[in-house]
Amino acid sequence: MQLNVSQKLIKDHLVSGEMTPGSEIGLKIDQTLTQDATGTMVMLELEAMELDRVKTEVSAQYVDHNLIQDDHRNPDDHIFLRSAAQRFGVYYSRPGNGVSHPVHMQDLAIPGKTLLGSDSHTCANGCMGMLAMGAGGIDVAMAMAGETYHITMPRIMGVKLTGELPEWVSAKDVILELLRRHSVKGGVGKIIEYYGPGLDSLSAMDRHVIANMGAELGATASVFPSDDEVKRFMTTQKREHEWVELKADEGAEYDDHDEVNLSELVPLIAKPTSPDNVVPVTEIEGDPIYQSYIGSSANPGYRDFAIASKIVEGRQVANGISFDINPTSRQQLQQLVENGHIANLLSASGRLHQAGCNGCIGMGQAPASGQNSLRTTPRNFPGRSGTREDSVFLCSPETAAASALTGVITDPRTLDIPYPEIEEPAIPEKGLEMLEAPPEDNQSVEIKKGPNISKIPDFEPIENNFDVPVILKMGDNISTDEILAGGSRVLPYRSNIEMISTFTFEGVDETYNDRAMEIRDEGGHMIVAGHNYGQGSSREHAVLAPRYLGMKVALVKDFARIHLQNLINFGILPLTFVNPEDHELIEDGDIIEFRNVHDNIKNSDTFEVTLKESGRKIPVRHSMTQRHLDIMLAGGIINWVKQRS
Amino acid sequence: MQLNVSQKLIKDHLVSGEMTPGSEIGLKIDQTLTQDATGTMVMLELEAMELDRVKTEVSAQYVDHNLIQDDHRNPDDHIFLRSAAQRFGVYYSRPGNGVSHPVHMQDLAIPGKTLLGSDSHTCANGCMGMLAMGAGGIDVAMAMAGETYHITMPRIMGVKLTGELPEWVSAKDVILELLRRHSVKGGVGKIIEYYGPGLDSLSAMDRHVIANMGAELGATASVFPSDDEVKRFMTTQKREHEWVELKADEGAEYDDHDEVNLSELVPLIAKPTSPDNVVPVTEIEGDPIYQSYIGSSANPGYRDFAIASKIVEGRQVANGISFDINPTSRQQLQQLVENGHIANLLSASGRLHQAGCNGCIGMGQAPASGQNSLRTTPRNFPGRSGTREDSVFLCSPETAAASALTGVITDPRTLDIPYPEIEEPAIPEKGLEMLEAPPEDNQSVEIKKGPNISKIPDFEPIENNFDVPVILKMGDNISTDEILAGGSRVLPYRSNIEMISTFTFEGVDETYNDRAMEIRDEGGHMIVAGHNYGQGSSREHAVLAPRYLGMKVALVKDFARIHLQNLINFGILPLTFVNPEDHELIEDGDIIEFRNVHDNIKNSDTFEVTLKESGRKIPVRHSMTQRHLDIMLAGGIINWVKQRS
Repeated sequence: MQLNVSQKLIKDHLVSGEMTPGSEIGLKIDQTLTQDATGTMVMLELEAMELDRVKTEVSAQYVDHNLIQDDHRNPDDHIFLRSAAQRFGVYYSRPGNGVSHPVHMQDLAIPGKTLLGSDSHTCANGCMGMLAMGAGGIDVAMAMAGETYHITMPRIMGVKLTGELPEWVSAKDVILELLRRHSVKGGVGKIIEYYGPGLDSLSAMDRHVIANMGAELGATASVFPSDDEVKRFMTTQKREHEWVELKADEGAEYDDHDEVNLSELVPLIAKPTSPDNVVPVTEIEGDPIYQSYIGSSANPGYRDFAIASKIVEGRQVANGISFDINPTSRQQLQQLVENGHIANLLSASGRLHQAGCNGCIGMGQAPASGQNSLRTTPRNFPGRSGTREDSVFLCSPETAAASALTGVITDPRTLDIPYPEIEEPAIPEKGLEMLEAPPEDNQSVEIKKGPNISKIPDFEPIENNFDVPVILKMGDNISTDEILAGGSRVLPYRSNIEMISTFTFEGVDETYNDRAMEIRDEGGHMIVAGHNYGQGSSREHAVLAPRYLGMKVALVKDFARIHLQNLINFGILPLTFVNPEDHELIEDGDIIEFRNVHDNIKNSDTFEVTLKESGRKIPVRHSMTQRHLDIMLAGGIINWVKQRS
Repeated sequence: MQLNVSQKLIKDHLVSGEMTPGSEIGLKIDQTLTQDATGTMVMLELEAMELDRVKTEVSAQYVDHNLIQDDHRNPDDHIFLRSAAQRFGVYYSRPGNGVSHPVHMQDLAIPGKTLLGSDSHTCANGCMGMLAMGAGGIDVAMAMAGETYHITMPRIMGVKLTGELPEWVSAKDVILELLRRHSVKGGVGKIIEYYGPGLDSLSAMDRHVIANMGAELGATASVFPSDDEVKRFMTTQKREHEWVELKADEGAEYDDHDEVNLSELVPLIAKPTSPDNVVPVTEIEGDPIYQSYIGSSANPGYRDFAIASKIVEGRQVANGISFDINPTSRQQLQQLVENGHIANLLSASGRLHQAGCNGCIGMGQAPASGQNSLRTTPRNFPGRSGTREDSVFLCSPETAAASALTGVITDPRTLDIPYPEIEEPAIPEKGLEMLEAPPEDNQSVEIKKGPNISKIPDFEPIENNFDVPVILKMGDNISTDEILAGGSRVLPYRSNIEMISTFTFEGVDETYNDRAMEIRDEGGHMIVAGHNYGQGSSREHAVLAPRYLGMKVALVKDFARIHLQNLINFGILPLTFVNPEDHELIEDGDIIEFRNVHDNIKNSDTFEVTLKESGRKIPVRHSMTQRHLDIMLAGGIINWVKQRS
């Protein structure tokens, strides 16, 4: 059978299951990537599992998110991450080195490998002929511990690229075109695989731009072949010896199809407040702007900065414009310095920032009230910039730089200069030590924890027989933001379950936390909710925090997918009503009797619980697989791993 | 009569009073400088005064403090400041352009002129043969409106410099030596004037380093002559036509004397938590560090970065060290880029930040818990870095760079390399537009205010008879950082007195704010402190915030100069103990009776207050002039100005 690149990658790593879209498959993970916002919890999980050394071929910990050091907490986390990386045999990239995805691409990515990362844009490394996927922290921790990673076999959507990009149109416009066509839900359950003659004119970094924003399509992964261009790129990185070819077989098929003729594309722009709200730049030309933002994982290439530099060379950006330059990596900043591009950008009034994620994740560089911000970043969800009612547009570096010069949204084709040609240089001769390799003898490394970093508490498995009070009854669509908020007030406690748990459900019921704590050591509690419980962000703290406070059971009408997985991972029993109207029978304060739970969940997907006061039986259901049951009865995935070792 | 440089500057600008140390003099102000942390309040004050256009020769508004844009507030302030600068005829320096003091020196400073700035380090421009003084915002606003600026005629302390700095010893060590000798109070009521043959080996920027930290000596100003070196510096800035010579007359005298033989100096370091806690570096060599910080107004020179670059060239800083590079200005960053120094610093693992004040004022770059931070900045007051129990050392760029390489505190003389020679280049040929000139037709400019920009509250004058509880008793050297912190958590509220007041004294006593608020409308409160109360930053929020919370009286052993003026300007009664040991008699919670205050302060500089419980009398003193009394009895300068118009 002829295989496409995605199928080859999956086949080469298939541990269990059938490659039929919709069925569960288990994959061997070769490489992992963690960043600092999610990595602290991953490291605490590895510690709780008592892992000796990671079992992947390569794991790397990047510090790129929390670079603003307002107080001791972020730098303490940096020190913690470095020590934990050394302890567990993980590469460490220090703060200021740059954004994980392009740094990983430059230094560690190898065609034909799988990469799992605790960052949604991990898919960017699909540009290197890898199967690269974002996942929750504990999933990445498990992969680092050598566990198989399970997903639903995706459909493979082949996107044939033809033609060649016109001048003033670049890779960002390609992915914006796909978002215009397919929306932010268009890639759900799919791998987007690119092929065809149009690839020849796209550099590896151009492909990174396209692969990165597969996350915005909702795709499981973005996949490109590993061809001569990937080889050329690896040569610039002095890693040509690690290159392998990976191409689709002649005549390989795809489950779904699309085609983009690059020659027909025009400069595009995503208007507020969704990456799929895409129109041609010409449609909104002339709107005044406050900010022009160059950088991020969605436009990380040398050429993305160099083209901006050549556009503004010898000119000044309009007065009052904040022209924010966010280098991708320390290495690339060096290249841009050496080739005169930083000089151009500074002369034009650029604000040169530290290499890292920065404003792309709302870490500084928020726009002023009611002012338009043009960014080469991947997302413009409301408030993500840090400014509550923001107005963020996503576009190419060409469009952002042209608009910085004029002070209004500008189609770069209207600039009266020839389209600059950019050649990608090799990495600087003056060697930059980017990644710190872990020591061979890692057992003796001491993990350094600042006062805000605690360990993950030990959790007991659920008992066989217990009575438990309902202390919170909720309705439909409770999101993880309501269970445990994000934001700068709460997130600095991301390494401290005890502290972060004090914020649990505060938006729903401020008394929850105190009431839960009171009975935590006398049997704990349960909650009841309606449909779509746990929608929104995948953050596992929304399970860890209530678990810490003694939550044993969540009984709801139905669960959001990722939150259900998180509940199982941390040993909270996730049950749904067999009869949704039974939700009405239960009140705050009711005590529910659970009997013979272990056999019940093993033997059937439905069983009964009893309302203690009335004696009324309520039928409940679970959807756990055998693997899930093993995890649940161990008290969560951390205990499960420990038991097996 | 032969005059020294300080006397010439004062004589040339004397509007009222006699040049006798201790008597009040009025000075004409030629230039003003405001930065964004204090400038928003200044602009609101100009607006309240209904000023048409500034009456100074040159006024400039810099944006260098609040560069971290977590949300709309800082960028809204930037837009507000730019519009207000245009409205009132003020130069505007955009965010990313760099630190006010060196930029002003490069672009606007003129020998022989007076400069008043709403930043305590304004004294740095004394390196240019100017009388440059820091002041509260409202004083600067008054000067911009053409009002005479009043000070107590300082004593002139002549510091004779002889010899020549040895290799590995630089300007920072000179001022650290003076701090070692004279302490943070040694310059109070004085102008420090430097003269002698040692000047010949100090560049204008070296003199800036020394003049800058006159603020840490508590001096009114630091003054250097305008000689051929100043001419050379202005030539590098293409401003030689603005140079004038200004030297002391042959045989001029000084009120006080000191002498420093530069040849005898060694690398020095100020240990936590005061800039005068100075020892030779050799004394603490080997202590491990977390951070090495290059930059700030206290080491802003091209050579300060270039020397660090040459020290780390071809090497890597120790693993785990945060090597923070904070360029002084966009122009100078360009020079450092062009001459290969940025490449060196990046190669060595430097974290290159935006040009600005940054970590020096606690705006990011806080050190990790319990870790030593070596900084070339001017201040190491407790918590100023952002980390509560920080451990910050002040040193030269040589010492900071050497220590970054080794990972421990290191005397740079022990490095096995020749002492690098640095030549200062001219400004880049590729012209950088740094300052935006105001329009000629400024009346029509509209001032733009974001939603966080409020007005200054109305304040009542102090009553004639009142009883008031002491709710906070403190010791010596309480800095304005402890009264009201800077940093990214607090400063975004600088245009909003109600919000910013919630942070008052939180580093000293977390309960202060609640206790003050409780009794604010029932008569308010007072505080008691020891020597040098209000040292450090000139920020008037350190008076506005407690005033808003109901502080009526500050009774201390003695005041720092600028803070005393700020107290008067906003109508808080500033009193000192006639007998300093009476400080012991007062406890937290004591109620003090004030009777017939208006006549008492008008009729004498001393009067008595009564401890209510014991009936014991305590003699107190004030140092207010008639003008001060008018302001105090009006309830502050804003009321006073309104009454006059």
